[in-house]
Amino acid sequence: MPYVNIKITREGGVTAEQKARLISGVTDLLREVLNKNPATTIVVIDEVETDNWGIGGESVSVRRRRGQ
Amino acid sequence: MPYVNIKITREGGVTAEQKARLISGVTDLLREVLNKNPATTIVVIDEVETDNWGIGGESVSVRRRRGQ
Amino acid sequence: MPYVNIKITREGGVTAEQKARLISGVTDLLREVLNKNPATTIVVIDEVETDNWGIGGESVSVRRRRGQ
Amino acid sequence: MPYVNIKITREGGVTAEQKARLISGVTDLLREVLNKNPATTIVVIDEVETDNWGIGGESVSVRRRRGQ
Amino acid sequence: MPYVNIKITREGGVTAEQKARLISGVTDLLREVLNKNPATTIVVIDEVETDNWGIGGESVSVRRRRGQ
Amino acid sequence: MPYVNIKITREGGVTAEQKARLISGVTDLLREVLNKNPATTIVVIDEVETDNWGIGGESVSVRRRRGQ
Repeated sequence: MPYVNIKITREGGVTAEQKARLISGVTDLLREVLNKNPATTIVVIDEVETDNWGIGGESVSVRRRRGQ
Repeated sequence: MPYVNIKITREGGVTAEQKARLISGVTDLLREVLNKNPATTIVVIDEVETDNWGIGGESVSVRRRRGQ
Repeated sequence: MPYVNIKITREGGVTAEQKARLISGVTDLLREVLNKNPATTIVVIDEVETDNWGIGGESVSVRRRRGQ
Repeated sequence: MPYVNIKITREGGVTAEQKARLISGVTDLLREVLNKNPATTIVVIDEVETDNWGIGGESVSVRRRRGQ
Repeated sequence: MPYVNIKITREGGVTAEQKARLISGVTDLLREVLNKNPATTIVVIDEVETDNWGIGGESVSVRRRRGQ
Repeated sequence: MPYVNIKITREGGVTAEQKARLISGVTDLLREVLNKNPATTIVVIDEVETDNWGIGGESVSVRRRRGQ
């Protein structure tokens, strides 16, 4: 019955297929490493605007404009 | 001064009235069980897209298409 | 399949019975208001040291020493 | 390598410049107080609809309509 | 620069080696699926007491005593 | 009424006084930048074991043993 929260920036058009791979990949990992039951493993993906994500003291928006 | 975070899938048109019932219900529960002060009890409801919520190794979108 | 996180200060000796009432109370509330399935409703309670919880710009430890 | 999550209500038009000040301010604080490396300090800002934020047992939407 | 939070119950003696496999597994998954940079991918594992984790309206402690 | 969660590794003996500076610093920042009321600003600090914190695909425990 694990709960996993994945936070990523909302950019580059993450597809439903890619999200599905994250969900199945994390669920498999928890079964393999800790024998956790997939039926009650919950995965929640949060996509965060680049203005709202900071690293290195500045927003990802600012970094992207500089080409980082 | 508790903090409560409720995460649900964004589907079926949850109304402001239903959200208000969740907020008052949780706040009452914390007052009744632990004598917590409602004035500083915070409740945050997150509605998550069905593509972004996984259970059983697959997204809720996929489950809904199968009728689950 | 909701996920609920309840954060409270670790003080006053919250009992397993009180935690059980929080768990059943929140699960019932989500079933009543939104028809959510209790079988996949997860509730996680975090108890936080009073040094680590701030409100009004100061820690709960400091407030408790003042009698608040 | 700290991780900081700031949750605020989505109202009043918070600007990218204000978010940038939150990000740099929190990152500076962690460097000053705990000598944490800004390069791996992550800050995520969540803006929450006023219907979805409760305090005092009612939503912020209801409070705002009363002028609070 | 993703942030991943994994919550599991504290039981059965999860080892440092198993936690390391969760950390490397999730980091690899985000690189493979979304080309995320491992250097700034953060993974935080929370182990939660079984009294503090609820599913199906009751605590995991109660379920374990029944043999579930 | 913001809610702020600060996650750091549990190492180096963070003192109550340092935590108090984080709490007051973040609360001041939210008042200065967004005019948020300190009376209902909540700050929660989580200290995470170094085995349970990953960055760059490995735990902080492993990095510390290498001198990083």
